[in-house]
Amino acid sequence: MSFEKNLEKYAGAIVKVGLNVQPGQRVLIGTPILNRPISFEHAPLVRHVARKCYEAGARMVSVMWGDPELDLIRLRHADPETISEFQHEWLINAAMPFAERGDAILVIYGADPDLYADEDPDLVSIMQDAAQRSTRDLRLNIVRNTNWCIVAAPTEAWAKKLGLSMDKFWDVIFSISRADRDDPIKAWDDQVEMLQSHATYMTQKAYQALHFVAPGTDLTVGLPDNHLWASALSPKPDGITNMVNLPTEEIFTTPHKDRVNGTVTASMPLSYGGTVIADFSLTFENGRAVSAKAGKGDKVLQKLLDSDEGSRFLGEVALVPHSSPISQSGVLFYKTLLDENAACHIALGSAYRNGIDGGSAMSEEEWASAGGNTSLIHVDFMIGSGKMDVFGVDASGNEEPVLKQGEWAFTVRARQ
Amino acid sequence: MSFEKNLEKYAGAIVKVGLNVQPGQRVLIGTPILNRPISFEHAPLVRHVARKCYEAGARMVSVMWGDPELDLIRLRHADPETISEFQHEWLINAAMPFAERGDAILVIYGADPDLYADEDPDLVSIMQDAAQRSTRDLRLNIVRNTNWCIVAAPTEAWAKKLGLSMDKFWDVIFSISRADRDDPIKAWDDQVEMLQSHATYMTQKAYQALHFVAPGTDLTVGLPDNHLWASALSPKPDGITNMVNLPTEEIFTTPHKDRVNGTVTASMPLSYGGTVIADFSLTFENGRAVSAKAGKGDKVLQKLLDSDEGSRFLGEVALVPHSSPISQSGVLFYKTLLDENAACHIALGSAYRNGIDGGSAMSEEEWASAGGNTSLIHVDFMIGSGKMDVFGVDASGNEEPVLKQGEWAFTVRARQ
Repeated sequence: MSFEKNLEKYAGAIVKVGLNVQPGQRVLIGTPILNRPISFEHAPLVRHVARKCYEAGARMVSVMWGDPELDLIRLRHADPETISEFQHEWLINAAMPFAERGDAILVIYGADPDLYADEDPDLVSIMQDAAQRSTRDLRLNIVRNTNWCIVAAPTEAWAKKLGLSMDKFWDVIFSISRADRDDPIKAWDDQVEMLQSHATYMTQKAYQALHFVAPGTDLTVGLPDNHLWASALSPKPDGITNMVNLPTEEIFTTPHKDRVNGTVTASMPLSYGGTVIADFSLTFENGRAVSAKAGKGDKVLQKLLDSDEGSRFLGEVALVPHSSPISQSGVLFYKTLLDENAACHIALGSAYRNGIDGGSAMSEEEWASAGGNTSLIHVDFMIGSGKMDVFGVDASGNEEPVLKQGEWAFTVRARQ
Repeated sequence: MSFEKNLEKYAGAIVKVGLNVQPGQRVLIGTPILNRPISFEHAPLVRHVARKCYEAGARMVSVMWGDPELDLIRLRHADPETISEFQHEWLINAAMPFAERGDAILVIYGADPDLYADEDPDLVSIMQDAAQRSTRDLRLNIVRNTNWCIVAAPTEAWAKKLGLSMDKFWDVIFSISRADRDDPIKAWDDQVEMLQSHATYMTQKAYQALHFVAPGTDLTVGLPDNHLWASALSPKPDGITNMVNLPTEEIFTTPHKDRVNGTVTASMPLSYGGTVIADFSLTFENGRAVSAKAGKGDKVLQKLLDSDEGSRFLGEVALVPHSSPISQSGVLFYKTLLDENAACHIALGSAYRNGIDGGSAMSEEEWASAGGNTSLIHVDFMIGSGKMDVFGVDASGNEEPVLKQGEWAFTVRARQ
């Protein structure tokens, strides 16, 4: 019974805090923003979410399901020449009207991190490039127009990878999502306020750069003029605000793409497109990752860096205290959506336009000269730990502590 | 092991005989023609079919899944005012390009015949009318352009309704689909030839009418000039032929909508949109069903007859010998797709244009004056049994036996 109760509370938080579904809205549940339909293992959660959506006044809940097994069957049995055609083209035709109308879009993530472990990596990469290219406009429309949210839910294969029973995995998800609290929605309201306060503090500080120091890491990440720190709280054009991730523990901004220098060592493995990259470091000079080496998955890492012009430059820098519930769960999820909320992280690839004041209105040239990066990829990886110090560098080059041994080094005004 | 083997052979027959998938074709699997996505209970069959499609040279297999439970959640929790909006609008946007391109489209049917038994019948009817209306163009495009096929596969709820275990239900499906034969594809080639021979014989006879006689039934169904008898073998514009149903035991033609007279008693219940209509008779005068009465589901039957102008007139007449494997299975499936292949049947509603020579090219007026019916619905119901005699009425009014006590009264030339 407690599982069903928690599942219902999780669904409630997703609908009210994550999506903030409005009366009369259409809701799309799927994973279009991850280039895939949704696994039917998620049916029990989806049914709860659908009911909560209708109770919130949604006029229609549509779900686009998929079967990851069919992607494997295609990789193994289709003519390899055909793999460059995106296998879920129909998903774009189906989802685009939702994205264009500004409906609510829920992405439920849960997949086997090793799904493609036994497949030809070149073929997998061709398949994933096709997906990235084909879904670009859809994803832009979702991010621009809709109240969208990504959440996670266990699957059998994912649980197995983590060495957890499904029950235990769900308990972890409920805990980090605060769904096991008496009032998850109140807990999230408090959390959102806390994140926003930290973001406001950091924006007001207007540091020139952040300096990350930890074992294997001595990295300076320059910040553009007028950069803005934000949480996952996102306003859409009609004024509705929602949280684009649940759970979320980060505040983040846009780095200056040409002012990153030093070496950084990942503090956690990264699951990228069905392959795990682990034990890796990158060295940056004037923003560019000039060298990189991974103990595991090096070939995929090099491929990732060579994706396009912008894939060797940073597009995000994010701060997460080491005491975050996700970090405290002690679970490595092999999924950025969750793992990035366990540690400070940076991302290779495209930067969010709203990380620089006025960024959304800039031309491509203005954006680049302001320090904003552009790329087809955006891949976060984790660099933080309990051994990390982060300093804010002010205009005179003085360093102030921001995180000390993984924890906030400043306090923000408490909730009224 | 024998289950997996039969499932694979079933998939093989579906791909080779049902769809006749061509090298380079895209394949869509779903149930768009039934206004619904496909239940994920069918994943094991779908995966076999997908592999067989790739082996046949398909360039892509896309599957549109659904969850019937979500339709129930909508009926129960959404604002009733919103139910007139088709709940799977996305399916049309997703499936239309496949239908327009003339891809292969597989419909896998398997649902709970009592799904809506506890719901408000008026609301269910509004929902189903919306689906019929919204998918009309999609269905027309599928029928016109694609090599499409409808097959059946068990689900838990359907098995329960039939009082069968899932294993037993699958055995029945394998048997009636000839998937348990050594060479199912050869068995289907023979069956198709047999059906075509009977259709050719009946077309050459050019009867003015058929006269059906059985307990509770004395019905004369007039046939238009130049009517054509056909099997489920269907040519598409590019010349590919395929079977639109698997299994199939019927030959059928288009009746003259204004020349149907007498009374007919259904020999089996009819599951219509989640409600069972049973123990029913209809009386026709000059083509129109002037009265009808059902012992069970009468309200739904009356609603069905009042759907539109053409819903009280016939759009199909079909002959099936009582010894058909489906009839011999002794199972009432509560699903026309299968039940109609157990017995002679007639359909209320729209007629197939190709049932009259040149029908496809006729204007609406020409079609109507040739005797062809038009309606948004097409609902078959079973009238045949081992006690039915069917006579062909020639131009002079003489009657020749066509079926005697349920079996063919003539023999066609054997296979060379």
